[in-house]
Amino acid sequence: MTKKEYDKFDKANANFQALTPLSFIERSAKVFPNHPAVVYGEIQYSWRELFDRTIKLASALTKFGIKKGDTVSILSANTPEMIEAHFGVPMSGAILNTINTRLDSETIGYILNHSDAKVFIVDCELAPEAAKAVKTIKNQNIFIVDILDYQNSQAPKSIGNISYDEFIEHGDVKFPWQLPNDEWDAISLNYTSGTSGKPKGVVYHHRGSYLMSMGTITDWNLPKHPKYLYTVPLFHCNGWGHAWTMAALAGTMFCTRAIIPEEIFNSITTHKITHFGGAPIVLNMLLNSPAARDFKCRRPVEIMTAGAPPPASILQGIERLGFNVTQVYGLTETYGHTVMSTWNSDWNDLQNDKKAQLKARQGVGMIHTSGLKVVDLDSGEQVAQDGIHTGEILIRGNTIMKGYLKDLSTTETVFKNGWFHTGDIAVMHPDGYIEIKDRLKDIIISGGENISSVEIEDVLHKHESISLAAVVALPDEKWGEVPCAFIELINGKSLSEDEIESFCREHLAGFKRPKKVIFCELPKTATGKIQKYELRMRARSTQC
Amino acid sequence: MTKKEYDKFDKANANFQALTPLSFIERSAKVFPNHPAVVYGEIQYSWRELFDRTIKLASALTKFGIKKGDTVSILSANTPEMIEAHFGVPMSGAILNTINTRLDSETIGYILNHSDAKVFIVDCELAPEAAKAVKTIKNQNIFIVDILDYQNSQAPKSIGNISYDEFIEHGDVKFPWQLPNDEWDAISLNYTSGTSGKPKGVVYHHRGSYLMSMGTITDWNLPKHPKYLYTVPLFHCNGWGHAWTMAALAGTMFCTRAIIPEEIFNSITTHKITHFGGAPIVLNMLLNSPAARDFKCRRPVEIMTAGAPPPASILQGIERLGFNVTQVYGLTETYGHTVMSTWNSDWNDLQNDKKAQLKARQGVGMIHTSGLKVVDLDSGEQVAQDGIHTGEILIRGNTIMKGYLKDLSTTETVFKNGWFHTGDIAVMHPDGYIEIKDRLKDIIISGGENISSVEIEDVLHKHESISLAAVVALPDEKWGEVPCAFIELINGKSLSEDEIESFCREHLAGFKRPKKVIFCELPKTATGKIQKYELRMRARSTQC
Repeated sequence: MTKKEYDKFDKANANFQALTPLSFIERSAKVFPNHPAVVYGEIQYSWRELFDRTIKLASALTKFGIKKGDTVSILSANTPEMIEAHFGVPMSGAILNTINTRLDSETIGYILNHSDAKVFIVDCELAPEAAKAVKTIKNQNIFIVDILDYQNSQAPKSIGNISYDEFIEHGDVKFPWQLPNDEWDAISLNYTSGTSGKPKGVVYHHRGSYLMSMGTITDWNLPKHPKYLYTVPLFHCNGWGHAWTMAALAGTMFCTRAIIPEEIFNSITTHKITHFGGAPIVLNMLLNSPAARDFKCRRPVEIMTAGAPPPASILQGIERLGFNVTQVYGLTETYGHTVMSTWNSDWNDLQNDKKAQLKARQGVGMIHTSGLKVVDLDSGEQVAQDGIHTGEILIRGNTIMKGYLKDLSTTETVFKNGWFHTGDIAVMHPDGYIEIKDRLKDIIISGGENISSVEIEDVLHKHESISLAAVVALPDEKWGEVPCAFIELINGKSLSEDEIESFCREHLAGFKRPKKVIFCELPKTATGKIQKYELRMRARSTQC
Repeated sequence: MTKKEYDKFDKANANFQALTPLSFIERSAKVFPNHPAVVYGEIQYSWRELFDRTIKLASALTKFGIKKGDTVSILSANTPEMIEAHFGVPMSGAILNTINTRLDSETIGYILNHSDAKVFIVDCELAPEAAKAVKTIKNQNIFIVDILDYQNSQAPKSIGNISYDEFIEHGDVKFPWQLPNDEWDAISLNYTSGTSGKPKGVVYHHRGSYLMSMGTITDWNLPKHPKYLYTVPLFHCNGWGHAWTMAALAGTMFCTRAIIPEEIFNSITTHKITHFGGAPIVLNMLLNSPAARDFKCRRPVEIMTAGAPPPASILQGIERLGFNVTQVYGLTETYGHTVMSTWNSDWNDLQNDKKAQLKARQGVGMIHTSGLKVVDLDSGEQVAQDGIHTGEILIRGNTIMKGYLKDLSTTETVFKNGWFHTGDIAVMHPDGYIEIKDRLKDIIISGGENISSVEIEDVLHKHESISLAAVVALPDEKWGEVPCAFIELINGKSLSEDEIESFCREHLAGFKRPKKVIFCELPKTATGKIQKYELRMRARSTQC
């Protein structure tokens, strides 16, 4: 029988190899050894040099005792070391855990504990917070490697056992690192603000990261050797996977420690940057900087933006400077972008405001996304494609996380019925493009960062004078959203806004602190549940 | 233990979906419904229209009784129907078997038999040969669908049960076709000239075809919406996979029934072609056509060439017309191109002849190729990367066939030690680029077509006057190589070159017939084995 004939072939080493983005750097180091890979101030590494450094990192980690399935955490700005870790750590078989540099020491400590990190690589600029975090964790033998950034004007602070450069010198450039045996093996671990208040550890696999790069090249129309300005923090969904994608194209990554509009404009001109990315807040910063007045791209520069829906005014403003913006949508759980506001040449002749309106929609599933739908919250059926009916966005495909580390139950919940449930509410337009309208989750997105309302509420509830606290998103011109706290005091107690601010300063990272505090009795349902919807309305009208 | 924590996640529908190029057409039909997909003379289909036609084909095949794992054969020039079959047939779960249009009826019959074809789609232009073939096969109930090409000036010949257009009208555009459950499922079947004389059925899988497209986009630097002139026959490695790749990019495929230089030049100018491909013989035809004198590309047009090493003179000549040529190397077993003569900007300032020399090398493994090496025939060790030591080219990766249909033993042989053995002999240069020097197999590559020496010898041995025949490749300026037959007659018998030619005409397709016949005693080893190496030398010097 023919049917059986086609099924008789076993997978063999000759015809079945694990998909992994680690293969990209190996190839670029071989084919484009002299092409620049990373540029950071005076530092420049070619693809051969970068690859050698990553092999040495993998070797040094292995000599130290790191094994397949161990966690290596890193807290760093977008330095060359941060890029090296994206290759060297998985080349050792370990999982790379990048930590949000804006977090407070308490949360960093939680992550180091939860991930069972064996090694902790720390950017000197973040040493004080890291040192505080390490004091709180179980594993007091955690091995700390210091990234000493000599380009940084402040004297680098060492809190660890060894400097990064010394550490990799223990490694052997001829180390026989191995590609993963199974493309389903974990490659990285990214913590995201959960609605429960505790960060959840999102696990990525090699297969997904490989396909994410291929899909990004295809759908973002990336040419060979792009010059990519790395403004997106590498701790966010592994910098949207672009370090791996650049390795596939032998591009050049220009690292930036901070986002300073003048420097970005300079860099674009000097280095002939072709691509970069950032949340709408970054575009807004650029647009509102005095340096924008005299700036114009010499050739079109492509921007990928995500993190929050970009206002049409920002899109139009930034494009007047010669940029072309493509909006993408995704979550930490989807490796970043899985939906793209793909441009259709049918729209080329529309008015500019209509164009900006179309670009402000989140878009359609990217090529690596197998399914995207919007379903009614009650019936679970797809909503009408009419741009009116709302429902929850569901996604499926190979760039969806393996799951939440040590939390199979929540993993199962968000994967129910074979789809990843985003918790975002959208409409689907007749052309199949989705547009976000609301969210189910208690999340505030401020300057591209997710903040859990519940986490802030938990902190507020610790205050002895507070009876009940509820935190909602308050729309903000600069940050998109900021946290707004509604507080009900214990009878007879009194508290000022300043007192709350100083209390929060002790317990919360700066970006998470409420920017507005309103004292009042909280509106509740008959069963006593706080009506957050009502509070969001009040926050907007600033009434209580 | 953390290690186990990372391994606790099962694959779920939400995060694991089969890779298949069928997802490409579904997406392009949705996102770019009005963008032209196929252009063939007056016929033009948008991506939505093309997708609808492929769904109807899948539906009609299913209604007819075609099931997962059945074979559907097609013998056709590069018509729209041929492109539709590349999607519609696998969408029905069947395997698409494309048959070389230059084959004789005997070989076509062999393929229909060997593949257990249930449906046979026949281009009217090839009806006579197809009808002869069908008469010889076991399955006399094979269902024949005629492609009636009304643009073809000759009255279309119908030999089958129904015309293609009528057939798909039985299909339902709302047919719930399914993506494969398993990316390892077979998608197509391509017969290649084996060294044994009998064609071997090379089976491709969905995973490989998906990755081939992604790798081609990345390494050939393909932009969105390319305009691709489809000169490469779709029966060769599924036209190098470009029908699927164009679906990923929502490109436009311009179909050509025959390769006529004037028409190609016209098409390039009129349709603003951006990309096309062809064997060096095609480039040579273009270059030597009178139309080349007045032709110059208005913007650079990218050519992918393969099938035989292109002479540096052809490369230089064709590039003077404004084309940019990229050579690739592969075999039917590798889905086509897996090695690419990737250009390195370090070479930009070299002299033109040096550039052509570099481009004439086969190159390095493409991004979808996991491994490429050249090993010594005796020791099996990698040869020195010195451009001098020769060995066999071995390849591994996800774009290597599942295996040969109904021939697990040969499959095992070519996959021994975890690598696919190409049978081609090459050197590896210090920069890792390979260059072909010879081949182990008894194959003659003529005008981009593989011809088995053994097959020709088998035919010659059937002649009553021939005692011994040996066929080798004779270098030829136009065709690259042509078959040259050495014949030892039975004592007392005589035979003229003309008689041999007319004998071959009865048994062999035109391109396989010996272009030169030499009567002599064949040189043999002590054990009686014919010394083909010696004959190749003699053929070159035309002495016997």
